[in-house]
Amino acid sequence: MYIRFYFDADVMIRFDSDYMAGAHLEVLERLVATNMELTVGYGNDEYCAAACRLVCEACSAPDAEVMFLVGGTQTNTVAIDGILRRHEGVLAAESGHIAVHESGAIEASGHKVLTLPHSDGKLSAEDVDSYIREFYADATCQHMVAPGMLYISQPTEYGTLYSLRELEALSATCHKHNIPLYIDGARMAYGLKAEGADFTLADIARLADVFYIGGTKCGTLFGEALVVTNRQLLTNLFPLVKQHGALLAKGRLLGVQFGALFGDGLYERIGEHAVRLAVRLREAMRGAGYEVVIESPTNQQFFRLPNEVIDRLHESVSFDYWGPRGKSESVVRFVTSWATTDEDIDRLCEILR
Amino acid sequence: MYIRFYFDADVMIRFDSDYMAGAHLEVLERLVATNMELTVGYGNDEYCAAACRLVCEACSAPDAEVMFLVGGTQTNTVAIDGILRRHEGVLAAESGHIAVHESGAIEASGHKVLTLPHSDGKLSAEDVDSYIREFYADATCQHMVAPGMLYISQPTEYGTLYSLRELEALSATCHKHNIPLYIDGARMAYGLKAEGADFTLADIARLADVFYIGGTKCGTLFGEALVVTNRQLLTNLFPLVKQHGALLAKGRLLGVQFGALFGDGLYERIGEHAVRLAVRLREAMRGAGYEVVIESPTNQQFFRLPNEVIDRLHESVSFDYWGPRGKSESVVRFVTSWATTDEDIDRLCEILR
Amino acid sequence: MYIRFYFDADVMIRFDSDYMAGAHLEVLERLVATNMELTVGYGNDEYCAAACRLVCEACSAPDAEVMFLVGGTQTNTVAIDGILRRHEGVLAAESGHIAVHESGAIEASGHKVLTLPHSDGKLSAEDVDSYIREFYADATCQHMVAPGMLYISQPTEYGTLYSLRELEALSATCHKHNIPLYIDGARMAYGLKAEGADFTLADIARLADVFYIGGTKCGTLFGEALVVTNRQLLTNLFPLVKQHGALLAKGRLLGVQFGALFGDGLYERIGEHAVRLAVRLREAMRGAGYEVVIESPTNQQFFRLPNEVIDRLHESVSFDYWGPRGKSESVVRFVTSWATTDEDIDRLCEILR
Amino acid sequence: MYIRFYFDADVMIRFDSDYMAGAHLEVLERLVATNMELTVGYGNDEYCAAACRLVCEACSAPDAEVMFLVGGTQTNTVAIDGILRRHEGVLAAESGHIAVHESGAIEASGHKVLTLPHSDGKLSAEDVDSYIREFYADATCQHMVAPGMLYISQPTEYGTLYSLRELEALSATCHKHNIPLYIDGARMAYGLKAEGADFTLADIARLADVFYIGGTKCGTLFGEALVVTNRQLLTNLFPLVKQHGALLAKGRLLGVQFGALFGDGLYERIGEHAVRLAVRLREAMRGAGYEVVIESPTNQQFFRLPNEVIDRLHESVSFDYWGPRGKSESVVRFVTSWATTDEDIDRLCEILR
Repeated sequence: MYIRFYFDADVMIRFDSDYMAGAHLEVLERLVATNMELTVGYGNDEYCAAACRLVCEACSAPDAEVMFLVGGTQTNTVAIDGILRRHEGVLAAESGHIAVHESGAIEASGHKVLTLPHSDGKLSAEDVDSYIREFYADATCQHMVAPGMLYISQPTEYGTLYSLRELEALSATCHKHNIPLYIDGARMAYGLKAEGADFTLADIARLADVFYIGGTKCGTLFGEALVVTNRQLLTNLFPLVKQHGALLAKGRLLGVQFGALFGDGLYERIGEHAVRLAVRLREAMRGAGYEVVIESPTNQQFFRLPNEVIDRLHESVSFDYWGPRGKSESVVRFVTSWATTDEDIDRLCEILR
Repeated sequence: MYIRFYFDADVMIRFDSDYMAGAHLEVLERLVATNMELTVGYGNDEYCAAACRLVCEACSAPDAEVMFLVGGTQTNTVAIDGILRRHEGVLAAESGHIAVHESGAIEASGHKVLTLPHSDGKLSAEDVDSYIREFYADATCQHMVAPGMLYISQPTEYGTLYSLRELEALSATCHKHNIPLYIDGARMAYGLKAEGADFTLADIARLADVFYIGGTKCGTLFGEALVVTNRQLLTNLFPLVKQHGALLAKGRLLGVQFGALFGDGLYERIGEHAVRLAVRLREAMRGAGYEVVIESPTNQQFFRLPNEVIDRLHESVSFDYWGPRGKSESVVRFVTSWATTDEDIDRLCEILR
Repeated sequence: MYIRFYFDADVMIRFDSDYMAGAHLEVLERLVATNMELTVGYGNDEYCAAACRLVCEACSAPDAEVMFLVGGTQTNTVAIDGILRRHEGVLAAESGHIAVHESGAIEASGHKVLTLPHSDGKLSAEDVDSYIREFYADATCQHMVAPGMLYISQPTEYGTLYSLRELEALSATCHKHNIPLYIDGARMAYGLKAEGADFTLADIARLADVFYIGGTKCGTLFGEALVVTNRQLLTNLFPLVKQHGALLAKGRLLGVQFGALFGDGLYERIGEHAVRLAVRLREAMRGAGYEVVIESPTNQQFFRLPNEVIDRLHESVSFDYWGPRGKSESVVRFVTSWATTDEDIDRLCEILR
Repeated sequence: MYIRFYFDADVMIRFDSDYMAGAHLEVLERLVATNMELTVGYGNDEYCAAACRLVCEACSAPDAEVMFLVGGTQTNTVAIDGILRRHEGVLAAESGHIAVHESGAIEASGHKVLTLPHSDGKLSAEDVDSYIREFYADATCQHMVAPGMLYISQPTEYGTLYSLRELEALSATCHKHNIPLYIDGARMAYGLKAEGADFTLADIARLADVFYIGGTKCGTLFGEALVVTNRQLLTNLFPLVKQHGALLAKGRLLGVQFGALFGDGLYERIGEHAVRLAVRLREAMRGAGYEVVIESPTNQQFFRLPNEVIDRLHESVSFDYWGPRGKSESVVRFVTSWATTDEDIDRLCEILR
């Protein structure tokens, strides 16, 4: 059997998002290679077991529980619903994915998202600390929703990154107040290899109680690895996942893919690749005289462009507005991924000229 | 790129379930062929649009809404939660998948599963009618959960099949009482091509208000096509799916797969293949003198075997018990699928000899 | 203090239920006497504190937490939702109030009611034990709803009573399997003083992990006392109650009423009174030659009467059918309460003659 | 009928809230007078029927459905959960009771509270309109929670009042966008009789689709009248109320109380009384030189007082801080009700002197 790649040269250069292509070829090969094997379902197979071990190793967390789920909203909902007690809510940035773009999945599972102001997508430990202290100082706090955990994204929805120091402060604040820290790592690969990134997966595993390492945006067809280091927080994960409709029948597809990501340094290479191209893209934009509006060291880049430039670019390049279209200029977002090529950037540079 | 199939000859012959292999090769090829294309996410792509049209055609339901989801429990939950009003429950057989094997997903979304006795997995229109009439005759019915819809599986969890006449009676009963009929078609392919099957997808579409055509057990890596013929029942499906964590980011993967299933008669061929092998298997068993305990015309077959035979078979053939192991004999289930081969049956026959 | 009662002599004698009148006069007097006092809300007042102490004393459970709620369905839902983890369900008799007559309140809070067959409303420890053992023996149990607690009613919906020995067996079975026992005591007063009752509130508190002592049917305008003896099971009861919309603003009304019930032996007198009249009623029926269909020692009595007798009685006596009206005879239920009078029984006897 | 009131002269003058006393005497008398009557339960009695008619009359809404519930959080949750579809949320002021002080009851029923900035507790029609227009203009709106209804309180949590014009603008905005307007009238009596109030209950009924008239804070022991003028929005209210654990067994207690409130102008007298005393109180404060910080025409009054004054007052007068205690001065809230007396104000005046 041969595989032909239909790649239409006429297709625009696309920087809309990091989930536009299928899987990285090394991942796809593994899926193809194992396709006709017959295994037990629901993740109870050897591929999942092996991938769990690889993820634990990558996190220097030999005792963590790892469970593979299909998508991000699903993973956030299962984790948050599993961690929180009935009367508790989850603290998050106003810009947090769970607060904005999950169609109320957290609320549908019964919990309030308690929002805090943010700075380019990031929360400060001080703000979290103040919120919790003021909450318990309020005489009516028993009538309000108690903050039962903290949700942050690393990288954030704005492409920004918490430094190791900031992560340590957030973790310390959470644990001082006896609530767990949960990290949404949908784009973790692009954070780990970001310019100036000073944290590792082992740091994440040490500082967070529960987190997930995203596959969907970082090389797999789909799939996220939920990692539970504080295991008493999320016991009985299996029925919880099933109850949320989040258990993949052919669970091994997740194990196979994460095995590919973590077996041979692919996850790191994917991160490096996308970040390198994001830097090229940003420098090209800057070189062309356009303002970089958020200092993002990761695969998402934000620029202020004259509307006429946007319109001209859109003839051959796709990318999104970030916020509404302004009168004469607008902010736009460009996203790179493992599937972006140097040729894409070259062509963009040409067009920018 | 080459694809090698790792098929270990030492591996046991497996009849445990119909979701042990990856995807049918014709499906896989399409996934591979389209892998590097860049498309918009969440099912808003051309592959999904084309697959919707194909599914509608297959169902002779040009105006139906089709939405592709990842798995069965998820699809059932989204559909049932979307259809029911807050105070309503869903009628189902005591053996129905939603009543038994979904870890309380329906209840987690707030609805009671109202169970009825069944006959080899099937409900009778009379029982449904009686239940509803008695419910409303009860003076305290306002304190009880109102039956808001009917759930059946075709084929059932016991491999049995409703005849067209039985489907028509169930549909008429539902509509007489003004509740919708929902059909779980996780194994629909194996029902449509079952021995003596007298119904078509067009019948299903005509008689049910909402139903789903299963991909996971019938040729895809994953995926179910939810078909809404009574469209006013399930408006705003998109945010509902998203809220349930059931929206696949790379939605086109579903479109591509269902396009493969329904573009070239593959779905029918898959059904025929598995049923033919199931019949071969059953006749082999019967020929060997073993009792067939459920008259199933589909890909699931149930036998009563002496425990010593079970133990001997288990040395090289995998299959499940159906219920607890008895003292001297037990009931077991054998399942075929598109991935079962004639060689599998040949080898089983040899072992049985 | 004077209270005039508007009691229309034309009104029928009523045996429909035990919640047809307002409050016992001793309760009402206390409400009236304290009406103009100004206290803090939400149960943080001295009346609630005192009533808690009285309830704890009555239960010989000095360390129990007591919380007063408004109604039974509410109390069951708060307790069960608070005790269960997300993926767990509650075991109950098929006839249990939560399984039948709470409009799906338990499911609306996300949990399945796992039903067991019963004998006149009662469960056997053996059946509970078998259910749990078989559940965990099933290979697919992770896909099913785990039994997370046991619910029983004492007295049951059939007026029957568990003996001390039966309660001990149920409690032992629960604790052997590490699940809590919850007792719905909506009619507890009528059980404690039932003919041949061999258990006390102290037994209930010792054997159950959580239970409630009903006020609504036993002398108050409304109100149930939720008693948590296994306190780690239900921490943060206050916000849970508030979240369920079950927190009474003028919480002291509950404290005042339960103070009246438990301050001066009123709860016991109420139980004795209603049971004595139920026995009179039963003997009158038996004397008139009618069959007693359930051996109930409490305030609910069940008879098989010819339809013509029912119709004649209904001219001046109200009571409910228990099940559908039969062809020539039917089963009916008569309920006494603290508000039933000897004159009511006298008049019934006359009519029966 | 005589009622003796135990009124401890030592008790402080209390302005903490409007739910500190029991029921207005005219309400209590009716409860006492009807106490021994035997009626059917769950609100199916003549007292409820009569009270419904009175409420409809008071609202000039003869065709409205009226249902009596026990408390405010409960009423809000039932109404909002009943109105919204699964994927929808409710718009409210950031200061709205449902957004702050209901322990996440709305989220526990599955819905997000979408908050808008407010001005002293009030929303503007412009802000509501902008929010909805911008929501649907956002390309990702299908991933966000759709605004499915608007919640406002009249009077607001800050004691302020929407003018008739403002109510009309909000109603028009809602209906332009095809979402219902829901009004929380926990303190409606004190709004209707507020200084300068230019709206009537008939206006409320005409402009809102659903609203409730509060009893708990306005003369009853407990109870709120939910009024549904747009009846197709909330069908099957009975099982919904039951499912929420909000159905009072002795439902007639609510009918009797609301019959008392609305039968003889009591509701109006209660409003007038509390507002008159609030004005006296405010003028006394102003006369004593203290700043009125919110222009409230209703029974809640807010002042900025030097901490030393607060401390001195607190020796004999109870009232709450509004926000944290400042360094040298703080904002405090005084609340009057039907139970506040002219003597209370006289004594406060004396102390202020």
